Amino acid sequence: MLEFKILQENEKGRIGKLRARNIEIETPTFLPVATKACIKTITPDEAKKLGYNAIIVNALHIYRRAMDVVTKVGIHKFMKWHGIIFSDSGGFQSIKNFPAKINNEGIIFRMPDGKEEIFTPKKCMEVQDRMGSDFVFALDDCPSYPYSKKRVEKAVERTIKWAIDCQGKNRFAIIQGGIYEDLRKYCAKKLASLDFFGFAIGGLCIGEEKQEMIKMVEITAKNLPFNRPRHLMGVGSPDDIAKCVKYGIDIFDSAFPTRNARHGTIFTSRGKINLGKKKVKGDTIDDECSCYTCKNFSLDYLNYLFKEKEPLAMRLATIHNLHFMNKFMEKLREEIKNA
Amino acid sequence: MLEFKILQENEKGRIGKLRARNIEIETPTFLPVATKACIKTITPDEAKKLGYNAIIVNALHIYRRAMDVVTKVGIHKFMKWHGIIFSDSGGFQSIKNFPAKINNEGIIFRMPDGKEEIFTPKKCMEVQDRMGSDFVFALDDCPSYPYSKKRVEKAVERTIKWAIDCQGKNRFAIIQGGIYEDLRKYCAKKLASLDFFGFAIGGLCIGEEKQEMIKMVEITAKNLPFNRPRHLMGVGSPDDIAKCVKYGIDIFDSAFPTRNARHGTIFTSRGKINLGKKKVKGDTIDDECSCYTCKNFSLDYLNYLFKEKEPLAMRLATIHNLHFMNKFMEKLREEIKNA
Repeated sequence: MLEFKILQENEKGRIGKLRARNIEIETPTFLPVATKACIKTITPDEAKKLGYNAIIVNALHIYRRAMDVVTKVGIHKFMKWHGIIFSDSGGFQSIKNFPAKINNEGIIFRMPDGKEEIFTPKKCMEVQDRMGSDFVFALDDCPSYPYSKKRVEKAVERTIKWAIDCQGKNRFAIIQGGIYEDLRKYCAKKLASLDFFGFAIGGLCIGEEKQEMIKMVEITAKNLPFNRPRHLMGVGSPDDIAKCVKYGIDIFDSAFPTRNARHGTIFTSRGKINLGKKKVKGDTIDDECSCYTCKNFSLDYLNYLFKEKEPLAMRLATIHNLHFMNKFMEKLREEIKNA
Repeated sequence: MLEFKILQENEKGRIGKLRARNIEIETPTFLPVATKACIKTITPDEAKKLGYNAIIVNALHIYRRAMDVVTKVGIHKFMKWHGIIFSDSGGFQSIKNFPAKINNEGIIFRMPDGKEEIFTPKKCMEVQDRMGSDFVFALDDCPSYPYSKKRVEKAVERTIKWAIDCQGKNRFAIIQGGIYEDLRKYCAKKLASLDFFGFAIGGLCIGEEKQEMIKMVEITAKNLPFNRPRHLMGVGSPDDIAKCVKYGIDIFDSAFPTRNARHGTIFTSRGKINLGKKKVKGDTIDDECSCYTCKNFSLDYLNYLFKEKEPLAMRLATIHNLHFMNKFMEKLREEIKNA
């Protein structure tokens, strides 16, 4: 049983409840990214202990590398994650030897053995269903930045056409439209008229100005149905999330906190700290943080582990940043509730 | 209070009790290697849960990279390991831009900033004491293989001379002598006459034939005092350990299980498995293993993580191999007890 309900809405944002697999999640929420069916460096148990009940994986990456073994048991059992799984359809930009080719039928990419395959909308849905994702994202045409308005018009047209074949009760449509108000509005309205569980805003945070990004989120969100979840793709810095929550975004996913962690940048109550480069000031990592890393290790030690490129460093920082994000989302929800 | 007692001895080996920091360890035992004050990929909590109560760190590596931060709080607090810590004196072979120079005074090496420093026996002891190690290894001259007998004679002479300055109640002497019976015997007897807590057999497993190695262990062990712990350095394959236990070795340390794990080689009840290369046969990693990795993940998943070079792979394999080693040592102890 999939369910979404808005419980409260005001100028700070909206509080909702998302339900799947008998798990209930309060929104706005942040999904850790497990592109290849693994949240980099941590176990599913750790993610759960950090307070997460939903993650997002990447259907294309898994299709290219592990479809046979995933199909045997389903994605949940394969990666031992018993929470909710969203799967993103694409990520075509992140395959080596990009660009994949795109035409009106779908997206053509190379398998690891060099063979070309095509994700048509139907094929893409079938793959995600076969994996056993709880929430499935439609196939979209996401032009890389910088783009011409003409290219984005074409992308919107394709995305809408493809969406027709992607409809379904556990499906999210993806709104394209680049940095163009009229195209975002048009795409949102067209997709909103189709049968989708929720709506994702795609094609942002790929190089455009920050204020353009925020503006597009505002406009797109306004043109989406009130009672459906709104997912903003790829936006994951705490500042950006705080802004976008105000425009009624319910779900975020981004590799930002985990990727930063692996590169030694941790989010703390006193701002970002970059580790592994020089000496650090202070004894504790973050006085206000109660995560496993902060409770157990000193700033000196974590800094030293990064300097030495010890793999444990990435893991401890990932735990910290994901804890930070979870608390951060909790705080944003509190602010909405108290507004 | 440091203590060592032999409780039982027969043709299968000997059972002992080693005590430090109010922790009692049954020997023969295996020490995981935490060269740079970190068991690669895992937390101290995980090592403890795997059944380990003692580890070995490397004084030189820590001296070169972290002495200031370690000295502030001591090595136990620094790395959050409340068990017993052995520290190896050297590892001069493993610094980039080796060779370090050696003369009769000590070993000269470069600091990361290029400056030359010398470890005299006294300096080396002082560094390990300052770190706060529970058991401190003497400075030795360990010639790299292949060596001439003349070079090894010189090494034995230096090692004995240096040992005089390294004596103390928590100190281990290191026996050199290459693959030469007479030198091993001579070195063992000379060092046995000095004031040491225990005796380590060094300079093996560095390129010599396996049967030469075993032979040297046998001869050296025979010439060591009965009631003192015998530590065999750098020998860590289950087969080798099983053989050396019979000759009365009490303590082993080696990066073998953890390094193998990181390269995708896991030890199982059905032999070694190499992961990350091709398809694997079977559903479970090791039916007879109850470690976290085996209880939670399939062979398919672990193999896939290695293929994708996901950092979690190294960690899950490390947990498995360290669990395997701990159970393996337990089995060897049982065999001695039941002999």
